[in-house]
Amino acid sequence: MLSERALRDVTVFTGSAHPEFAAEMCEILGIDLAPSRTTRFSNDCLQVQLRANCRQRDVFIVQPLVPPVQEHLVELCLMLDAARGASAAHITAVIPHYAYARSDKKDAPRISIGGRLVADMIAASGATRVVTMALHAPQVHGFFSIPVDHLSAVAELADHFKQTDLSDTVVVSPDLGNAKVATQLARKLGLGVAAGSKRRLADDTVVVDNIVGDVQGKNVIVFDDEIATAGSIVEVLRKLRSEGARRISLACTHGLFTGPAIERLRAESDIDEIVTTNTVPLAPEKQLPNMVTRSVAPLFAEAVRRINCGESVSSLFSDEPTYG
Amino acid sequence: MLSERALRDVTVFTGSAHPEFAAEMCEILGIDLAPSRTTRFSNDCLQVQLRANCRQRDVFIVQPLVPPVQEHLVELCLMLDAARGASAAHITAVIPHYAYARSDKKDAPRISIGGRLVADMIAASGATRVVTMALHAPQVHGFFSIPVDHLSAVAELADHFKQTDLSDTVVVSPDLGNAKVATQLARKLGLGVAAGSKRRLADDTVVVDNIVGDVQGKNVIVFDDEIATAGSIVEVLRKLRSEGARRISLACTHGLFTGPAIERLRAESDIDEIVTTNTVPLAPEKQLPNMVTRSVAPLFAEAVRRINCGESVSSLFSDEPTYG
Amino acid sequence: MLSERALRDVTVFTGSAHPEFAAEMCEILGIDLAPSRTTRFSNDCLQVQLRANCRQRDVFIVQPLVPPVQEHLVELCLMLDAARGASAAHITAVIPHYAYARSDKKDAPRISIGGRLVADMIAASGATRVVTMALHAPQVHGFFSIPVDHLSAVAELADHFKQTDLSDTVVVSPDLGNAKVATQLARKLGLGVAAGSKRRLADDTVVVDNIVGDVQGKNVIVFDDEIATAGSIVEVLRKLRSEGARRISLACTHGLFTGPAIERLRAESDIDEIVTTNTVPLAPEKQLPNMVTRSVAPLFAEAVRRINCGESVSSLFSDEPTYG
Amino acid sequence: MLSERALRDVTVFTGSAHPEFAAEMCEILGIDLAPSRTTRFSNDCLQVQLRANCRQRDVFIVQPLVPPVQEHLVELCLMLDAARGASAAHITAVIPHYAYARSDKKDAPRISIGGRLVADMIAASGATRVVTMALHAPQVHGFFSIPVDHLSAVAELADHFKQTDLSDTVVVSPDLGNAKVATQLARKLGLGVAAGSKRRLADDTVVVDNIVGDVQGKNVIVFDDEIATAGSIVEVLRKLRSEGARRISLACTHGLFTGPAIERLRAESDIDEIVTTNTVPLAPEKQLPNMVTRSVAPLFAEAVRRINCGESVSSLFSDEPTYG
Amino acid sequence: MLSERALRDVTVFTGSAHPEFAAEMCEILGIDLAPSRTTRFSNDCLQVQLRANCRQRDVFIVQPLVPPVQEHLVELCLMLDAARGASAAHITAVIPHYAYARSDKKDAPRISIGGRLVADMIAASGATRVVTMALHAPQVHGFFSIPVDHLSAVAELADHFKQTDLSDTVVVSPDLGNAKVATQLARKLGLGVAAGSKRRLADDTVVVDNIVGDVQGKNVIVFDDEIATAGSIVEVLRKLRSEGARRISLACTHGLFTGPAIERLRAESDIDEIVTTNTVPLAPEKQLPNMVTRSVAPLFAEAVRRINCGESVSSLFSDEPTYG
Amino acid sequence: MLSERALRDVTVFTGSAHPEFAAEMCEILGIDLAPSRTTRFSNDCLQVQLRANCRQRDVFIVQPLVPPVQEHLVELCLMLDAARGASAAHITAVIPHYAYARSDKKDAPRISIGGRLVADMIAASGATRVVTMALHAPQVHGFFSIPVDHLSAVAELADHFKQTDLSDTVVVSPDLGNAKVATQLARKLGLGVAAGSKRRLADDTVVVDNIVGDVQGKNVIVFDDEIATAGSIVEVLRKLRSEGARRISLACTHGLFTGPAIERLRAESDIDEIVTTNTVPLAPEKQLPNMVTRSVAPLFAEAVRRINCGESVSSLFSDEPTYG
Repeated sequence: MLSERALRDVTVFTGSAHPEFAAEMCEILGIDLAPSRTTRFSNDCLQVQLRANCRQRDVFIVQPLVPPVQEHLVELCLMLDAARGASAAHITAVIPHYAYARSDKKDAPRISIGGRLVADMIAASGATRVVTMALHAPQVHGFFSIPVDHLSAVAELADHFKQTDLSDTVVVSPDLGNAKVATQLARKLGLGVAAGSKRRLADDTVVVDNIVGDVQGKNVIVFDDEIATAGSIVEVLRKLRSEGARRISLACTHGLFTGPAIERLRAESDIDEIVTTNTVPLAPEKQLPNMVTRSVAPLFAEAVRRINCGESVSSLFSDEPTYG
Repeated sequence: MLSERALRDVTVFTGSAHPEFAAEMCEILGIDLAPSRTTRFSNDCLQVQLRANCRQRDVFIVQPLVPPVQEHLVELCLMLDAARGASAAHITAVIPHYAYARSDKKDAPRISIGGRLVADMIAASGATRVVTMALHAPQVHGFFSIPVDHLSAVAELADHFKQTDLSDTVVVSPDLGNAKVATQLARKLGLGVAAGSKRRLADDTVVVDNIVGDVQGKNVIVFDDEIATAGSIVEVLRKLRSEGARRISLACTHGLFTGPAIERLRAESDIDEIVTTNTVPLAPEKQLPNMVTRSVAPLFAEAVRRINCGESVSSLFSDEPTYG
Repeated sequence: MLSERALRDVTVFTGSAHPEFAAEMCEILGIDLAPSRTTRFSNDCLQVQLRANCRQRDVFIVQPLVPPVQEHLVELCLMLDAARGASAAHITAVIPHYAYARSDKKDAPRISIGGRLVADMIAASGATRVVTMALHAPQVHGFFSIPVDHLSAVAELADHFKQTDLSDTVVVSPDLGNAKVATQLARKLGLGVAAGSKRRLADDTVVVDNIVGDVQGKNVIVFDDEIATAGSIVEVLRKLRSEGARRISLACTHGLFTGPAIERLRAESDIDEIVTTNTVPLAPEKQLPNMVTRSVAPLFAEAVRRINCGESVSSLFSDEPTYG
Repeated sequence: MLSERALRDVTVFTGSAHPEFAAEMCEILGIDLAPSRTTRFSNDCLQVQLRANCRQRDVFIVQPLVPPVQEHLVELCLMLDAARGASAAHITAVIPHYAYARSDKKDAPRISIGGRLVADMIAASGATRVVTMALHAPQVHGFFSIPVDHLSAVAELADHFKQTDLSDTVVVSPDLGNAKVATQLARKLGLGVAAGSKRRLADDTVVVDNIVGDVQGKNVIVFDDEIATAGSIVEVLRKLRSEGARRISLACTHGLFTGPAIERLRAESDIDEIVTTNTVPLAPEKQLPNMVTRSVAPLFAEAVRRINCGESVSSLFSDEPTYG
Repeated sequence: MLSERALRDVTVFTGSAHPEFAAEMCEILGIDLAPSRTTRFSNDCLQVQLRANCRQRDVFIVQPLVPPVQEHLVELCLMLDAARGASAAHITAVIPHYAYARSDKKDAPRISIGGRLVADMIAASGATRVVTMALHAPQVHGFFSIPVDHLSAVAELADHFKQTDLSDTVVVSPDLGNAKVATQLARKLGLGVAAGSKRRLADDTVVVDNIVGDVQGKNVIVFDDEIATAGSIVEVLRKLRSEGARRISLACTHGLFTGPAIERLRAESDIDEIVTTNTVPLAPEKQLPNMVTRSVAPLFAEAVRRINCGESVSSLFSDEPTYG
Repeated sequence: MLSERALRDVTVFTGSAHPEFAAEMCEILGIDLAPSRTTRFSNDCLQVQLRANCRQRDVFIVQPLVPPVQEHLVELCLMLDAARGASAAHITAVIPHYAYARSDKKDAPRISIGGRLVADMIAASGATRVVTMALHAPQVHGFFSIPVDHLSAVAELADHFKQTDLSDTVVVSPDLGNAKVATQLARKLGLGVAAGSKRRLADDTVVVDNIVGDVQGKNVIVFDDEIATAGSIVEVLRKLRSEGARRISLACTHGLFTGPAIERLRAESDIDEIVTTNTVPLAPEKQLPNMVTRSVAPLFAEAVRRINCGESVSSLFSDEPTYG
């Protein structure tokens, strides 16, 4: 996918969160991943040393905010700050998974809007631009005071499903209140949508007490931006089966699979496929036989190249013709 | 609703957008609305003079961003700046309708996220706090770098519908991708939800090609945060009727009723009621016989009082017990 | 006037205020005006889309603050913000007429200094430099926290008058308290100066009760930075005639001609010439037979070229030799 | 002049520039001047210690920017910073003479606008408000991002002249380009105005080659905001005499009398009176027999009291009735 | 120690790092610790809810940066941000141990100065003041842009040693390059000082190859601001014994005792006493028989009281008489 | 030492503090020093004009903060601001001696931390980077919010001593509390260290009452970062002689030699050599016969070159291999 114009003065570093992703990006870009060293002092403080010249260079630091999130966040901030102190010309935080996007509103008194606070921290640490993917809500883009290139995995995931049998298929959003991404995938595939309607029973129990839309006798693709514990997925699957759904596939951009997720998904033996991307590293022991991982490193590599060459990133992801 | 603790050093000004709303607030608070004067110079620039002492006082400036929005926005910024220059202790922008909340994401290349930019302008002009209502998306709260008290009209609107016959009734969101507020109203009323599924035909044409959820033989309350031209409302009504809905009511927090809205709504002669609030001034000639307006000025007045007395505003709107 | 060094990565956009001016600049620069689209939503909010790539480019946005000023100001801020979000390398606001310059002091209690507030808004929206002309007071330059190239039309206007008969001529400032620009024009033409002495009768009535300096039997060029309603011009003309002035010409940089201006000027049938520039668009119906418009677009185009090429802009307008 | 409401938690410090002024203010306010100590290290760096508790107090630091200006400026900044670090609730810089106000525009390429830079330094050092007097241009007010109370000495000086014979008297501004303050004094005294018209011969030579307005046989009060070397005063006096002026008085707010000023003024033996204020300390050896000094310390003391009590400062200086 | 003036509107919250310390402070202050709740989402992000009203209150948030440091840092920032969003009047971060103080200089290329970055993060999250103790270098105070009350435990530790036999005793700093605190303790006790001279063998091996000063036949108190792994303590003890030191005591402000520290100290069986404070929580299993812990919670409680009442904090810790 | 890669768009200005240093740097760099003019107005305010084009250039402004420090500081700030206003691409403050580094901590109540305040002023004036040398404490680096290249003269001074007889020699720090730089020089020379232990008698009297470490019969090099009045040097010499030291040399990076320094050093007739650098200009009358000055202008010139070319500056001063 990568076009020919050569990179100029690019240096790519990776934090500890997902070095394989950074390495894959660099391989596609045809450059070496620059070395850095993160030291943990005996008092548990971190120190980062960037071990390649940054002066007047176009620096990219790759770090998804995956568990342990706080460690990775502080490491990212230290790396950004080190690059700034080393007189980098531009500093782009490449955050394939921005976990704090879920803390995006104040739905209880006196809570922090973590998504905004962390965005401010990243800018205060020296980032001059962010590249990220599939923010939980598109409004989170506006939490950043610096330019954000917000990539989407929907086209990549749609490419996968286009190779499958899509007859009598409907895309299902687990949550009626957040059905926009499911709608996007459905549109790419030319399919209809349905959605689970959640009800919160207690502080930590949610039931899907209704499926809004018709799934009787249909094949379904349940699509969400992120799967964490898979709790609400299991809920919606239970309800889908009781409503007469047939073949079931799952898809998500960010495959976190935390806590009981793998056991839960293994137990749902009738899931045809679980399709995800590599924004979050997947431990080998979490790999299930029906899992399919699509790499979005080429997308991020192309974004890096275009940022560096001053080409439009948006034109990469939209069909709209643009001038210049 | 107002409790007894006395106000301390409060001064309330109003911009030109909705002086009746500010006057109603002041009457409830038992204080005089402070005078100000907005001058338009012959070169069309505005100048504001606050004509009451602000020094070390708790200043509130009331201005919903209703049309002409740009005029009202700049006037608000000038008033905030004048209050800052006059050494106010606190400056709260009271914005019952924050119109720019709809510009909350970057869904096309190289557009501004107006909701964030305007939030920054308001803070840069000197506001130290914002009180607003029913932001189009709850994430817009996070666009502000200053504290925001985000009020909701759902309880007020629910109070209205609780006095009506709610048998066999379902709350309908015109847009599946933005169904959260409809869900909230439904929960307050103990009803189910359904949602229109939109499809964009051309740049400015949207059709509702499906109703997700069952409305056959049901009474429906179509609820959205805002009604502007009523274009998508008409679309969803058409579809609801074809799906067999019976009695139809409309409700919204922000009743803008711009452009052809009134003609369209008048033409839909079977609408039982159109229930809205007074966050946006309604010209007498736009008043339809089936319109019901619930005042939220008491809610804003109580918020002002609590802000001034240092009481919790959140406890006003939530049932959760809090300490202190 | 334009020198040969080629432009590098320049993109020029125009707001709605004066597209002809931007087009003339682009024609002189030998580039295409880049497309953009301003949308007004049904709730009256504006949205701007820049429809050409901005990434790492030297972006110029042309927008004089002419009526409707508030609309044009907010549109400008949205365009600046969109360019920032699109990762422009430099963003220059080209504001041929900065109307808010007149709100430059606090001559009444608790008023805003609009000139400073609007300067802060423009910087907060993402402008990294401003090019403007003939600010009402030179101190307004200092309201901006970003670099300002402050052009002057005096040389351009002087060029016009040098072609006329200047014998027995004196330059007259309508206001003794603001006579600096008249002094500059007089110096360029080798003429003397006189000035009207104003007295404020009521809040909105000003009389020129005296001409300070001798105009008996002289031809006069009345020169101000801006003509809006022409009210004080008419006043000074009345007084000049009563003091025995002969041939009368008017000149100004910013020809706003608002409200009754055209009727008033048409009524003063003995005015020889009204010389102005094109910083403000002049509607055809406002065109009087004795009006002469000098284009300053070449000056702005040359400033853009020099900014882009890293050449000194000041050397363009001063005779002082500089190093390098 | 001082009203009765008691001061709350006020602490007043003085820098080295004019302790007598601060002491006079404190005496009027009925409080003790709080002690501080400025140390000069052997490497010439300054250190300030505020020797009274500042925590949550309303702190005022008195320091006119008189020669040596740079020393006094840095000392002021250190004092402001120390007050901030000591958790003062409010920090007001009381700057009776803001010398850098004269660096208010960019009239040559690549010069600093010192008036703006120093305003930013003062705010960056921790000042939350400024009280000053007779800024060279009223626009300098807008250089500050924090509230400014801008006092005027015109009423005080007018009080003096009202006790003198004002028959056949005209107020003369030495500079036609800056005649506004002369106009204000004239208006207070019910007199007419005239102005010198300057011409710059070389870089540092200015001649007054014309008096605009009639002074033949008139008594004149030459009024400027500041007298420094008295060079242009001498120039205008020469011209006034040649135009037939009779009795001559001088007045200014800021009596700097630097360099040859005293010798020059002594040599102009026909000057009736030189009236000034005490914003700048006057060394005893500079005292001429015809000098009259009016104290503005009462004005500043009253401003401090009103700031502290939350009363309007503007109402002190204007006749306009205000609400509250 | 606590004086009588009552607290006004104080609310104290604690993070997860050391609730016992906060509870002890509150007990001394005679108030209840306010409740809060930290939630860890399944994607490992934290969310904090302050469960007591903050509006216009004087809020204190207690959180030493002890392991896991990154978790506690982010939790602290979220709590500060929540307090700001809840309109607290003042927000003080009470950080008994500021671990990042050790990252205070750039002693290798392209490393972050973590002490400054974390200080900026804390201020950016909403803290308006910091109270801390025994920063590794006093210069770290200057990393904060907000006021810092920097307490010292030296007096508290000296009180302990004053009750012991101090004959023939010398205070030893483990590191010649950082001997200032040892000097302070020595001065309080009227004793002399000595210091270890370190040499770095490899990246992580340091030997103390010399004791600068005479310890032959002396009792020694080895004093450092912090003991982490006790590696260099063990080194200096070895050298002290070889130089003929007699009875050995250890003292430090921050007793981290990480990694092999406890095993190492247990093995040094001739240590008379290990005296530390409770700025860092000490797990019961780390408690050695010769350990003595002095509580500094009373010092912090008194600082909170004085901050709240507007009394001088510095006067608490210095003998210098102050005004007011 | 200068490598070949050519400079791009570099402009170097000098303030009044040390033009010889700037000239030497420029000669090494092979470029002309750009002209500027500092004017002192009659009211003692400074104005700076940069007399060479700055637009989009890499501007360096050379100004050590030597006496008169306040004059040089304000001049530096004005020059930085002028460069910013003139649209420089990068602005580096080259400050060979940063005198305010000594004001680095709050060792008394309510004092300013001048080192931090001045760092903020320099950044607020427009500097985007700082190059300096031998800050009194390395932590002062962290006072700057902008990148700092912190050079060391230790290698340069060590080069000098390597050419002398170093047998039986020890490096002595005058102050035990600040022995780190002496340790660095000792390490470079393979020597041991000793240190004076100071005691403060009164506010301005310090005695060195002990030498920690053995100097009996040894040659000593007394090394400190700065010599100002030489008071504590004289103290430590007295004590060294009484402890039996033999040949005595002095060395420092910053040779200020203020007040009685030269007389004191002249009186200490047995000092072998006084070795310093040229970061501070040395008046000819202060030149003693035993003084040796090593120029560090080549080091600064090389730093400028590397900054301009985007090469690593740190690699210049460290032996550690780096990537790229």
